[in-house]
Amino acid sequence: MSDHPVAPVAPHEPPYYAVVFTSVRTDGDNGYGETADRMEELVQEIPGFLGMDIARTPGGLGVTVGYFRDEDAIKEWRAVLDHRAAQSRGRAEWYERYAVHVAKVERSYAFERGHAVDEGVE
Amino acid sequence: MSDHPVAPVAPHEPPYYAVVFTSVRTDGDNGYGETADRMEELVQEIPGFLGMDIARTPGGLGVTVGYFRDEDAIKEWRAVLDHRAAQSRGRAEWYERYAVHVAKVERSYAFERGHAVDEGVE
Repeated sequence: MSDHPVAPVAPHEPPYYAVVFTSVRTDGDNGYGETADRMEELVQEIPGFLGMDIARTPGGLGVTVGYFRDEDAIKEWRAVLDHRAAQSRGRAEWYERYAVHVAKVERSYAFERGHAVDEGVE
Repeated sequence: MSDHPVAPVAPHEPPYYAVVFTSVRTDGDNGYGETADRMEELVQEIPGFLGMDIARTPGGLGVTVGYFRDEDAIKEWRAVLDHRAAQSRGRAEWYERYAVHVAKVERSYAFERGHAVDEGVE
């Protein structure tokens, strides 16, 4: 996985979409890391892609949340051929199990140390 | 943090809500672990609580997604006094920064190794 700046994706003005991907990996890398890096690059090219939060507990659950401006942006990302190939390989090799929840964000807010109040975007 | 079975929360029948909480911690535990365990117990008591996915990259980003049947369940959880106290202490001590995205799940699906096809709940 590439180095991520350690900061959560900031709230955007609702409505926007969050695609929650939760997974448990199989043992070993099996080329996963390289493909994951490539996918993180590719998704940046999708118009309407707003950012991605990625976390994985070692040996445990991984949770990735991709944020998109609208359904069209999600559709475009789903249609990318290299992405489809990666999903297929994920089912064949990389994932023991996963779940996907596609959700429309209705409100969001953030906190940053040193700032007096929450910034609400509702 | 308590031991979680290493499996993603399964899709529920939409619509339901996903509350995405992304955070960067301050250094040290400062009582965080004990409170986190308590919160994980407490939220189970909320009618309409559907489950929680938790992942944290060591030294990096944490992503927690709580699933709720409806807005009322979220409101009820937000009103729990011990939860409010924990949130307040989180801003004072535990979190460098965080973001919250409250989103209505429109569709979801899952994959489990050994099963031929995705189970769609749309």
